[in-house]
Formats: sequence, C-alpha cells, structure tokens
Amino acid sequence: MAPPVSGLRELRRRRRELRSRMELLIMETQAEVCRALAALDPGASFVVDSWERKEGGGGISCVLQDGEVFEKAGVNVSVVSGLLSEEAARQMRSRGKSLKAKDGKLPFCAMGVSSVIHPKNPHVPTMHFNYRYFEIEEADGTKQWWFGGGTDLTPTYLNEEDAVHFHKTLKEACDKHDLKLYPKYKKWCDDYFYIKHRGERRGIGGIFFDDMDSPSKEEVFQFVKSCAKAVVPCYIPIVKKHCHDSFTPEEKLWQQLRRGRYVEFNLLYDRGTKFGLLTPGSRIESILMSLPLTARWEYMHNPPESSKEAEILEVLRNPKDWVH
Amino acid sequence: MAPPVSGLRELRRRRRELRSRMELLIMETQAEVCRALAALDPGASFVVDSWERKEGGGGISCVLQDGEVFEKAGVNVSVVSGLLSEEAARQMRSRGKSLKAKDGKLPFCAMGVSSVIHPKNPHVPTMHFNYRYFEIEEADGTKQWWFGGGTDLTPTYLNEEDAVHFHKTLKEACDKHDLKLYPKYKKWCDDYFYIKHRGERRGIGGIFFDDMDSPSKEEVFQFVKSCAKAVVPCYIPIVKKHCHDSFTPEEKLWQQLRRGRYVEFNLLYDRGTKFGLLTPGSRIESILMSLPLTARWEYMHNPPESSKEAEILEVLRNPKDWVH
Repeated sequence: MAPPVSGLRELRRRRRELRSRMELLIMETQAEVCRALAALDPGASFVVDSWERKEGGGGISCVLQDGEVFEKAGVNVSVVSGLLSEEAARQMRSRGKSLKAKDGKLPFCAMGVSSVIHPKNPHVPTMHFNYRYFEIEEADGTKQWWFGGGTDLTPTYLNEEDAVHFHKTLKEACDKHDLKLYPKYKKWCDDYFYIKHRGERRGIGGIFFDDMDSPSKEEVFQFVKSCAKAVVPCYIPIVKKHCHDSFTPEEKLWQQLRRGRYVEFNLLYDRGTKFGLLTPGSRIESILMSLPLTARWEYMHNPPESSKEAEILEVLRNPKDWVH
Repeated sequence: MAPPVSGLRELRRRRRELRSRMELLIMETQAEVCRALAALDPGASFVVDSWERKEGGGGISCVLQDGEVFEKAGVNVSVVSGLLSEEAARQMRSRGKSLKAKDGKLPFCAMGVSSVIHPKNPHVPTMHFNYRYFEIEEADGTKQWWFGGGTDLTPTYLNEEDAVHFHKTLKEACDKHDLKLYPKYKKWCDDYFYIKHRGERRGIGGIFFDDMDSPSKEEVFQFVKSCAKAVVPCYIPIVKKHCHDSFTPEEKLWQQLRRGRYVEFNLLYDRGTKFGLLTPGSRIESILMSLPLTARWEYMHNPPESSKEAEILEVLRNPKDWVH
C-alpha cells in the first residue's frame, strides 16, 4: 500500500533533511579537527581556500604547513553535484552495481570530509580519515545512495598503547551501532591499505568501509556520525602525548622513508586519488594535499633484525588485532 | 627464393651475435656511465648488487647514494628470459600487436640498461636513459623483435645553453642514421613524459622511442649504439660545468618540489615502472631506484611571475625546439 500523501511529503522532507544533516556533519568535523590541531600548534596558521567546480558545487580546504607540531595537515570538505557518465558512476562504487541512466547521464551528488595529518615528530603517527555520502538518480527516478569512510593510523614506530587506544576508540564508536561492524571494517582497512609490491600495509589500520547502504539511511548516517565524532578522541591524545618526545636523526630518517611508502600507496593504489586525478574538473591541489611535505627513498634500506624499525615492519606485514 | 643452407646458418649466427653484441653494449654503457660518475664524485662509492630472477636471467645494479655531487645515481642492467602470457606480451609493446602463442605462453628475451641520476646541486639537472631489446617467439617459430629507449633531461632551472648542448648531442647521434629520427623521437619524448594532471612535462625532454623494428635489426642496433654512446657526452659536461655552482636554500627547495613531480610521473604514468611492479618476480628495489633520495610536496606552491621557477614551468608546459 502506498503511503498517504502526507507520509510521502514527510519522507521527502527527511531525505532533504538527511542531506543537509550530512553536510552539517562534514562542516562540523572539519571545524572540530582544525580547532584541535590549531590548539596543539598555536604558532602555525591554516591556509583556508574555498573553491568552486564549474560543473557544480565546490569545497573548502584548510591546510597547515611546516608548523611546530605538524609538518603538513589538511582537512578538506567538498559538496559537488552534476551529471556522471555510466562508466564513471560504475567506478564510484566498489561493488560496481549497474545503474540505468537517462540519456547516458546520471544526476549525482557527492559530499565528504577528508583529512591527512603528517606530524613532524617521528613518535607522533600520521592519521587519515574520510567520511562521504553519495546519491545517484537513475532513469526511473530511483535514488541509489551510500556512505563510505574510515579512519586509519600510520605510525613510524610502534607504540602498542597508542595502537590499542586508537582502535579501542574506533571500536566503541562502531559497537554502539552493531557489534559486527568493527571486526568487518577493521579487516577491510587492513586489506585496502595494502602496498602490494612491498607486501606491507601503509599503517596499523583502523576502520574502512564503502558502499554502506543498510540497514537504513538514518541508521547508517548515525553510524557515520559516531565515526566522525571519534576522530578527535582517537587521535589527538596520541599527538599530545608524544609531540614533545625527543628523537634522533636516525628516527627522523626512518620517518622520511615511511613517508616514501605513504606516497607509493597514495599514487599507485589509492582509489580516491586515482579517481580524483582522472576526473575532469577535479581540484588537483586538494587531492594531492594528502602527500607529505617531505619523503625519502633509499636503495636497499633494510633495518637490522630486532630493531624498532623491524618491529613496526613486522606489524605492517602481519596485521594484529589490537582490541577484542 | 629461400636462402641456401649456408646462408641460413649465417643468418642464425648473426642473430645470436646481435643478441650478444646488444648484451655487450648494455654492459659497456653501464661501465662507461659508472666510470664517468665515479670520476666526478671520487669520495662516493657504488653499491654493486647482482641478482637473479628465479624465472630466468638476472641483472646488476650499481647505485651511488648521498655522494658529494650525486644525491642518488643508479645504473641497472638486466637480461631476462622465460615465458610470457599473451596478455603480458601485449602489454610490452606500445602498439599492442597480437602475438600467437603456443599453449598460451610465449618464449621471450628482454635485455636493457637503465639509469636515473639525481645530482645534489639544483643547478645540475637530473638525467634518465634506458636502452632495451626484446625478442618474442610465436607459435610458428617466427621471432618478433624490437628495440626501445631514450635519454631525457630534467632540470630544476632552465639553462638554455645546456638544453641546446643536450639536444644537439642527441640529434647528432640520430642524424648519423636518419634525419627523420631526431624530430620524431624528440616529439615522442615530450608526449611520453607528460604529467597529465599537472599539464606539465617531467623535464625538457630528449629522445624516446619504442617498438623500433625497421629498417633492419642491424641498422636499428647501430642506431641504439649511437644513442647509448651519446649518454656520457650529452650529460657529463653539464654536470662538470655546474656541480660547484653556489645555490640558495630557496633553490634547493624548488629542486625538492620538482623531485616530487618526478615521483608523481614515475608512480602514476611511467609504463616501465607500472609493468615492473605488476610483473611477478620483478626486483622492486631496481625498479624504484629511479625515485629520488628526497622529495617535497607543498600545498598550492605557485612561483611568482617572471621568476626563474616560472621560467622553467613555462618550458615544461610548452615544450620548445632546442635544435633545428
């Protein structure tokens, strides 16, 4: 039975509402994270750019560079809409569902917040997060929608206490919604951030998910909201704890080599980066903001056995469970 | 009319001979270039590794790292043989000719010398060269063969005199064989080393060619030999001229940003790097030897108009003819 007209109206209102609530969450997350970073690095200042995409929509990039605590930290938001080709639409979904287009074009709307934070001190890990929402309208008017995202940590050296804190905070955010989510998305994260030619993960993981469209739009939104709200508490305490740790030139060098691996992953494997660079009208500077300020590649660098460098490599080669 | 038996034998002998002459040229080129580099950087020493590929063949890598003059300089040779899948064989040729395999596998032999030299001083350009030979045997016993290669220059700052010297030396090597070669391969080089998302070439070019299989094996070999012999005279005088030039921290920083672009090209676009990373049993360290020791990415770095930095960018955006 079709819902009465007032019910339909209510549904439409809620849908509009969800889109604006997601937009609000994205903006709030950007502001929260920037505020937390600025408080830790008061001498540094954010460069704030807003940009428009001539095909529709735009975004705001906040980037802090060469601060006391952060080498490079960027937080981007974007809300874009327009028409996608069927091919591009297929590429956007990891499951590659087929979508029926009207005249070969699909109206879409994509919004998200994404961030990479590279600190200076090698005892403070790099952190990345991204939360996004997509809508595509098919020829018959049906709307496909889904959420994607994740938060993950890339330390130069392993600190088990930090790894547990990070994963535990993310697990708690997931567990409020469904106990199956954390284990599933933790594994997805380990699988996704894999540098195949090195046989290493980029970092010690976190959570990663894509194409999430059940149980309901409202419930997925609430889950994404919990994840976004967990970004500051999972990461900022680790920065505070270590940003004044002393370090040696050898530790800084190892950090630079790990930055090189970060670049390898982002340019060779990351779906978002590739999709972005291949999309006409995309903003290159915002996409490549994820690259570190500096990186290093040494020929045949192999850390000695039982060193701290070998310890993190072991975890990158064989991911561990940090919380149960 | 079929050649008489003695003629056939003679042809086979020459074919074997050409393969060993190419192998010799590859080894000689490696030795010559390493000798020239060592003479300019007497305090530094080459790490020499020989490696074997379990599928057949192997190579020798010579790498100098963190010297006085060179930040990272590597010269690789490899001679490998084995069986290729039809798919992999297709990917090896830029023209993508179809090859008929016996039981889905094609016996092949590939040999080459490749090198990337990243100097410390920002007034000394980076140089890359690669010369290679391939043979693939089809089901009916026909052998497909071709040569590929090129030499190209990536300066941090434009020095017109150096650009002319570099291109002139390469043009002279080409002109000895056919006046059409330099213009054709100069353009191919500008087209190949294109960083699409930046709208810039990687450097000021040189020559680049692939799939070269005419007029005859002997003639193409002689051409490749001339190119390989031109590597030292086209580049080493430029290193000698500038390796003691003074430079500012700002110039060093611009060099590091250009190194970042070098990494972007190699990881996102270079066919050789991609092919290598995807080939099972390939030696990752030798493939990624081309990456600089250090690189840098700054958000929204735009050199001021009429600066020396803007001058080189202009040439990277709109390639010039350096010799006529």
